[in-house]
Amino acid sequence: MLSFECDYNVGAHPEILEALLRTNMEPCPGYGKDPYTEQAREKIRMSCGREDADVRFLVGGTQTNRIVIDSMLKSYEGVIAATTGHISAHEAGAIEASGHKVLTVPGYDGKLSAQDVEALIDTFYADGSHEHMVFPGMVYISHPTEYGTLYTLAELQALSALCRRHAIPLFLDGARLGYGLMSRDTDVTLADIAALCDVFYIGGTKVGALCGEAVVFTHDNAPKHFFTTVKQNGALLAKGRLLGVQFDTLFTDDLYLRISQNAIDRAEELKTLFLEKGYSFFKSSPTNQQFILLSDEQIEALSKQVRFEIWERVDEGHCAVRFATSWATTSEDIAALREILSRVG
Amino acid sequence: MLSFECDYNVGAHPEILEALLRTNMEPCPGYGKDPYTEQAREKIRMSCGREDADVRFLVGGTQTNRIVIDSMLKSYEGVIAATTGHISAHEAGAIEASGHKVLTVPGYDGKLSAQDVEALIDTFYADGSHEHMVFPGMVYISHPTEYGTLYTLAELQALSALCRRHAIPLFLDGARLGYGLMSRDTDVTLADIAALCDVFYIGGTKVGALCGEAVVFTHDNAPKHFFTTVKQNGALLAKGRLLGVQFDTLFTDDLYLRISQNAIDRAEELKTLFLEKGYSFFKSSPTNQQFILLSDEQIEALSKQVRFEIWERVDEGHCAVRFATSWATTSEDIAALREILSRVG
Amino acid sequence: MLSFECDYNVGAHPEILEALLRTNMEPCPGYGKDPYTEQAREKIRMSCGREDADVRFLVGGTQTNRIVIDSMLKSYEGVIAATTGHISAHEAGAIEASGHKVLTVPGYDGKLSAQDVEALIDTFYADGSHEHMVFPGMVYISHPTEYGTLYTLAELQALSALCRRHAIPLFLDGARLGYGLMSRDTDVTLADIAALCDVFYIGGTKVGALCGEAVVFTHDNAPKHFFTTVKQNGALLAKGRLLGVQFDTLFTDDLYLRISQNAIDRAEELKTLFLEKGYSFFKSSPTNQQFILLSDEQIEALSKQVRFEIWERVDEGHCAVRFATSWATTSEDIAALREILSRVG
Amino acid sequence: MLSFECDYNVGAHPEILEALLRTNMEPCPGYGKDPYTEQAREKIRMSCGREDADVRFLVGGTQTNRIVIDSMLKSYEGVIAATTGHISAHEAGAIEASGHKVLTVPGYDGKLSAQDVEALIDTFYADGSHEHMVFPGMVYISHPTEYGTLYTLAELQALSALCRRHAIPLFLDGARLGYGLMSRDTDVTLADIAALCDVFYIGGTKVGALCGEAVVFTHDNAPKHFFTTVKQNGALLAKGRLLGVQFDTLFTDDLYLRISQNAIDRAEELKTLFLEKGYSFFKSSPTNQQFILLSDEQIEALSKQVRFEIWERVDEGHCAVRFATSWATTSEDIAALREILSRVG
Repeated sequence: MLSFECDYNVGAHPEILEALLRTNMEPCPGYGKDPYTEQAREKIRMSCGREDADVRFLVGGTQTNRIVIDSMLKSYEGVIAATTGHISAHEAGAIEASGHKVLTVPGYDGKLSAQDVEALIDTFYADGSHEHMVFPGMVYISHPTEYGTLYTLAELQALSALCRRHAIPLFLDGARLGYGLMSRDTDVTLADIAALCDVFYIGGTKVGALCGEAVVFTHDNAPKHFFTTVKQNGALLAKGRLLGVQFDTLFTDDLYLRISQNAIDRAEELKTLFLEKGYSFFKSSPTNQQFILLSDEQIEALSKQVRFEIWERVDEGHCAVRFATSWATTSEDIAALREILSRVG
Repeated sequence: MLSFECDYNVGAHPEILEALLRTNMEPCPGYGKDPYTEQAREKIRMSCGREDADVRFLVGGTQTNRIVIDSMLKSYEGVIAATTGHISAHEAGAIEASGHKVLTVPGYDGKLSAQDVEALIDTFYADGSHEHMVFPGMVYISHPTEYGTLYTLAELQALSALCRRHAIPLFLDGARLGYGLMSRDTDVTLADIAALCDVFYIGGTKVGALCGEAVVFTHDNAPKHFFTTVKQNGALLAKGRLLGVQFDTLFTDDLYLRISQNAIDRAEELKTLFLEKGYSFFKSSPTNQQFILLSDEQIEALSKQVRFEIWERVDEGHCAVRFATSWATTSEDIAALREILSRVG
Repeated sequence: MLSFECDYNVGAHPEILEALLRTNMEPCPGYGKDPYTEQAREKIRMSCGREDADVRFLVGGTQTNRIVIDSMLKSYEGVIAATTGHISAHEAGAIEASGHKVLTVPGYDGKLSAQDVEALIDTFYADGSHEHMVFPGMVYISHPTEYGTLYTLAELQALSALCRRHAIPLFLDGARLGYGLMSRDTDVTLADIAALCDVFYIGGTKVGALCGEAVVFTHDNAPKHFFTTVKQNGALLAKGRLLGVQFDTLFTDDLYLRISQNAIDRAEELKTLFLEKGYSFFKSSPTNQQFILLSDEQIEALSKQVRFEIWERVDEGHCAVRFATSWATTSEDIAALREILSRVG
Repeated sequence: MLSFECDYNVGAHPEILEALLRTNMEPCPGYGKDPYTEQAREKIRMSCGREDADVRFLVGGTQTNRIVIDSMLKSYEGVIAATTGHISAHEAGAIEASGHKVLTVPGYDGKLSAQDVEALIDTFYADGSHEHMVFPGMVYISHPTEYGTLYTLAELQALSALCRRHAIPLFLDGARLGYGLMSRDTDVTLADIAALCDVFYIGGTKVGALCGEAVVFTHDNAPKHFFTTVKQNGALLAKGRLLGVQFDTLFTDDLYLRISQNAIDRAEELKTLFLEKGYSFFKSSPTNQQFILLSDEQIEALSKQVRFEIWERVDEGHCAVRFATSWATTSEDIAALREILSRVG
C-alpha cells in the first residue's frame, strides 16, 4: 500500500547498500577504528567547516540523546527542552533513567524561545532556595522540530548567545537534519549549526541510512573517555564499519543533501496537492513532515488506500494527521496520492 | 593482510546482504513490527523447540547483557558470574552503571561450577547480616566462554537445577553460540539451552550478521513492557527490519548453523596446523577461538604477516595470543597461514 | 530574633529529648531492631486502625519520597504529581536521579484533581505510541500541600478510587501531616488516610522530632526486602533507636496530635492578627503555614524584627511571604508579633 | 544483659545530649546553615591543621561512602577497595546502585597494599583494550579496617604517593577513626590523614554520636554544588543542627579523642583478660574491635550471659567472634565479663 507513514519505512539508500556490499569482505578493525569511519569523520568535519570538531557515531536517536545529555551534564543538572521535545515526551523516560530531569518550557510549534529559556535560568538563580532544585545545565532543541518547523538563523544565534553567556552547552537534535538544511524556507547552514551549537547530531536513520547518527562535538569538547561511556551504555558496535561506511557514503558527493532535497521537493508537491484539494493544515511545516487536518470520515476513507499517521485529536470529529516524505518518495507516489484524493475527496 | 584477529572483522554473510537488498524498498512498520521480524521470531521459536519462547532483537552484546540483566533483577539483587565473565571484566561497568553488582566466583577456563555458585548462595543466606548485602539474583554464563570453552550438558543441567531450586534465572550469553553448537566436542543442543535456561541470546554480530542479537525468553517470561525498557535504554531501532531480515535469513535453511560449521572446520585445521608446527596451546578450546603460546620474538615475527590478538602476558618472554576463525574464514586463509608459519617457524 | 521562618527552626519537643535521655544507656540492637522501634510501629498501626500496616522509619522527607517512589515503581513508570509538588520542584531532582520521570498536572493551590489525573492516564493509554512513553505508575499528593491546603475526604476518596481502578498506588506525603489532621477545616482522619492510600508517611522532622518520618505501607504491601533497599540508599541508621524512641514518644498519649494542635491554634491567632491589621492573604490556608502579601517596603521594615520566608514574587512591588507556626510557637510569640505589626503597620 | 556486641548499641555521649538540650529551643536556620554547624566545621579544620579543608556533615556511613564516591568519580570510573572493604561486602550494593564498580584487590587483615593497587592500575593501562573496562578512579581504605587493624604512617604515605602519581583521590573511611587515632599501636595522627588523603570522614555514629559523619575534603576540593548532591541523595537534614551540635561538642576540649581513649583502654583490658584465660585471637587488633576464636560450645555457653557478634565460621566447630568496646564501656563491664569467663571457662 502507498505509504507516507514515516521517513523510516524503507531500507537504506541504494548507494549505501552498494558501499556495504563493496567493502563487505575487507577485514577491518572493530569498534569504529576502521578506515571508513575515519574517512566519514573527516568528511563530516569538512562539511561542518570545523577542523576541531570531534565526530562520533551512534546507532539511534534516543540512544544519542541519552548518552550525549548524560555525559555532558553533572548529576545535579537537568536539560531544558520544549514540553513537546522528543526527549520530554517520546523517549520512554530515557533521560530520567540516566538520572536527569527534563526542565520544560512551552514550545511554539515545537520551538523554544530564547526569552523563555533565559527566564527559566534567571528565575532559577533568583530563587533563594535554588540549591534545593535542579540546575539548568544544557539546552536541547530539535531542528527540524517534532512538528517539522525550523529555527531561523537569528533564533539559533539568540539561543547560542544565551547558552554561552550562562556557560551551558547548546545541543541540537538533528534526527532529520538533512530535511531542515534543504528546506526552501531556511537561512541556516550546517556550518552555522557547527558554529553555534556545542554538540549536535546529523541523523542517518531518517535520512537514508539503515541506522546511525553522527554526533558532532563542535570544538574538541567531547567528554573525556567518551568511547568508554558509549561502551558502558551498550551503544558500541563491534562492527563499527556499519556506521562508518554509511556515513562515508552519505558525505561523499553530497549524497546526504541530495537525497534530502528529494524529500523536500516531494513534500512541496504534497503540500500543493492538499492545498489544491482544499484541505487545511494543522501546522505550517517547511520540511518533510506535513500535518493535515482530517475529519474522522476522511481518515476512515483515506486509510484504506494510503498509510499515514494519526498525530493527535484536535476536536471531536477531527484529527491532525502526518504525511511524511523521505529520500525515497517518488513523483509516482505523489501522483498515486493525487488519484486517491481525487477519488476520496 | 591475513587476519585471524577476531570474528567480527568482515561484514555480513552475503545471503544477509542479499536479503537486505531484496527487501530494501518495501515499506514496513518500524520498531520491529515488520513481517521479517515476526518471521524471524517464529523461526527461532521453532529452532528452540519452544512455542512459548518470546524472542526479541537487540543490537549488540553489551547492550543485551545490560538490558536483560537489569530488567530481570530487583534493585537489591546482583548477578553471579565468573571473574573472567564478559560482564565482569570487559563491558566498562555496564552492569554496575545500571545499578547492579556482579558477584564473582572463580572461572575454570571461563566456566562457572555449580558447586561454587551454590556455595555463594548458601553462604549468603547463612550470613546473619545478609540483609546488608547484595542478594544473588541471577546466574550469568557464557557459552562458548571468553576462552572458547563449552559447558557439558551435565554441567548446564546442574546449573539449571540449582537456579530453579533457588528460584533465580539462568542467563546464557551466546554471543558466539553458533560456534558452540557446531563444536565437535559438545553434547549441548539449542533445544537443551532453551529448556535449561530462563533467558539466553543467540549472537548475530560474531556469527555472520552486521549487528544483532536474538534474546530468547524461554517460557513467556519476558519482563513486562520490555519494549518500553528497550526504548528507554536507547536500544530500539526505528528500522527494526535491519535485525528482523538478518535473523530471518540466518534461521532459514539452517544458515546460522552452516556458517558456524565453517568456522569450526577452519578452527580444527588451524589447531592441527599449530600442533604440527610444534606450538603449545594456552587453553584447549573446542570452538573458533584458539589460544596459542608464543614467545615475544615469535609475536614480533608473525605479526608482520598476519593479524591476531595478544590475549595476556603469561610470563616474561611469552604471551597467550588468540587466533579466531569465523563463518568467513576460508581454506585459503589456513593455507596462507601454513606458509607463514613455515617461513617464520 | 522572633522567628516564623519555618516549622523546623528549633530542636525537638522536650518529651522527645527526655525519652532519648531516659533510654540513652540501654544497650539495644541496631538497625531498627530495638524494642522502642517495635513499640512505635505498633502504636502507629493502632493509630491508623490497621493491623496489616507495615511501618518503617526513615530520616527525612526527600529521602522518604525518593526511596518509596523508586521502590514501588517499575523502571518504565513515572509518578504523577502537581507541578508545585515537592518532588517536582524542590528535591533537586531526587526522583529523576533514581530513574523516574515526574509526570506533572496542574496544581490547584497545591492540590491534584482526580479529573486531571484520570485525563492524563486516559490520554496515555489512548495514545497509539504510548509504549514509547513513560507509564503512569503512581499518584503522589502532599497533605497538607506545599501551600498549606488540604484535600477533603471526598477528594481523597476520588483519588483513591481512580488509583485502584487503574491499579496504581496512591502515595501521600505527610511531611506536615499532624498540622493537617488538627486543622479546624478538615474532615480527614488518620484512619481515612490509612484506608485510602497505599502508602503515606507521618512527618516527624516538621512536627516535633529532631529528624524522622514514619512510612506506613497500609496493607502489608511494603516492597520485598525494603530493609536492604533502605540500606542501599544510605538511609539505614545504625542507631535506629533514634527514630524509634522519637516516634514511640510522639505516639504515646497522642503527643503528635496535641503538639500539632498547638501549631494550629497559634496559626489561627496569627491569621486573625494579620486580618485585623488589614493585610491580604496570598492563599487561604487552614494549616500552620500562612501566606501573606507584603509590599517590598513592608518586607524591609518587618524583616528587621521578625524572621519569615519570602515565598514568591507576585508583582513588581509585592511578594507572597510565609509565616509558619509549629508545635513550639507560643502565645507570647504571637503577642510579640502583634507589637511588631502595630509599630510597623 | 552485658553487651559487647558492637560500638553503636547505646545512645549518645551524655555531653552530646546535654548540648542538644541546651540549644534545643534556639531558632536556627536549617540545612546546616546554623552557627553550631559552622563552629563544628571550624573546629574540625583546626584539628586537622588545614585551613583549606571543606567539612560537610552526613548522617551515616553507607550514605557517606555512596555520596562521596559517586560525587568524585566520573561515570566510567570505579573505586579500588579490599575485597573485605565495607563498600565491597556490606553496603547492599550502594556503590553499584550509584553506578560504579568496586574494583577489588586482596585485603591483608583488611588493609590494601600499595603494591597491589599499583599493579591493578599498571595492568589496567597496559591492557590494549582498557577502554572497554572500568577505569580505576579512586582508592578507598578504611582506618581502622573492618578487622580493627590500622595502616602505619609509611603505608598511608605509600598509598597517598601512588594516588597522587596517578592523579586519583585517596578516600579514607573513618567510621571508627577515633579508636584508630587513640590506639597504642599507631603512628598516624589526624593531621597526617588530612595531609595524605584527598577526602576522609570522621565517624560519629560509632564514636559517641546519635548519628553523623564529618566528611573532610582536605584541600578545597569538595565537588561543585555538593550541597545539591546531598539533597538529591536524600541525605540533607532540615534540622542540620542535629549534626552540627553533636560534632561541635565532640570537637570541644578533645571530647572525641578522650572518649575514644576509653574504648581503647577497655579493649586492652579485654584483650588481656582473654589472653589470661587462654583464648586465641582470630586477628590481632590494636583498636576497639577484638576477634576471638571460640568453639561452638563456648559460644553457646557464653551467649547466655553476654552479647557479642558471630563474625565468621573458621572451621567445623569454631567461629571467630567479635567483642567491641566503645566510648561507653566501663571497667565494671570488663569486671563482669571476667566473672562470666571464670564461670564458663
